Amino acid sequence: MDGSVVWKEEMLFDGLGKSGFVVPLDANPSKEKTNSGPSPMELVALSLAACTAMDVISILQKKREKVSAFEVKIHADRTAEYPKVFTHAALEYIFSGQALSEDAIVRSIELSVEKYCPVYTMLAQVFPIDLRYTIFEIEDSGAPRVVAQGTYTPHGLE
Amino acid sequence: MDGSVVWKEEMLFDGLGKSGFVVPLDANPSKEKTNSGPSPMELVALSLAACTAMDVISILQKKREKVSAFEVKIHADRTAEYPKVFTHAALEYIFSGQALSEDAIVRSIELSVEKYCPVYTMLAQVFPIDLRYTIFEIEDSGAPRVVAQGTYTPHGLE
Repeated sequence: MDGSVVWKEEMLFDGLGKSGFVVPLDANPSKEKTNSGPSPMELVALSLAACTAMDVISILQKKREKVSAFEVKIHADRTAEYPKVFTHAALEYIFSGQALSEDAIVRSIELSVEKYCPVYTMLAQVFPIDLRYTIFEIEDSGAPRVVAQGTYTPHGLE
Repeated sequence: MDGSVVWKEEMLFDGLGKSGFVVPLDANPSKEKTNSGPSPMELVALSLAACTAMDVISILQKKREKVSAFEVKIHADRTAEYPKVFTHAALEYIFSGQALSEDAIVRSIELSVEKYCPVYTMLAQVFPIDLRYTIFEIEDSGAPRVVAQGTYTPHGLE
């Protein structure tokens, strides 16, 4: 994999990787500035969430689970002192759908973090990552109702 | 730090972090698709390059070095087998300017990787990262000429 980041101005860089998409990166992101972008650490956190999210939705689609909405939230703590690394992260997988199988969901998270997700596998060597999930049943009225919540602890970390 | 990735369709997610920028992420990026974005591992590689690049340009600007162009290239190798983690990366810092100080440049790289850059600090615990630099002098004609090349080996890794 090859890529580059090219300095534009101040702390703004354009990132270009093999996908061909230009990714702006900025040390001090601000939507108010004309040119700005997310910070590197923000992108690392989003990459972690997206990496495992892609595995999970891919597995659930293969199992024909009826997922109507899916989101992975991430909370990450950093040291106050430089280099301000992440010290802990929590991922929350939030599913909405009809008669979703909790077993299938837990298995999809297991396969992602134990086998498929490279970002998780790398970062879990550096700081602890908690995993939890919430499953909403979408009622006929359209209202969501929590039907299951739980945590997943990778075998490798026990 | 808080963020989330929201499933849009197929393997496409929208990432939203504290900067407020929406970052598209896709398992199988394609500029030909209407909706697509870079992959998580691509973003991790770009975040690594951008993180240290921001430190370096910030330090060189404080030292009033006359950098006219600056780019950090990254090459990363991955395992063929899942989870396809990075096994090695090489960063190349490429500077263009007038009478740039090689000492100042080496010191800026040192400060970034030894002290400031969180993405480097985290990922260097997972796989080896080689660091090298190339300095171009921009002639009066505008033509670039290589005036220095070298490598930097962090003390912590020796």
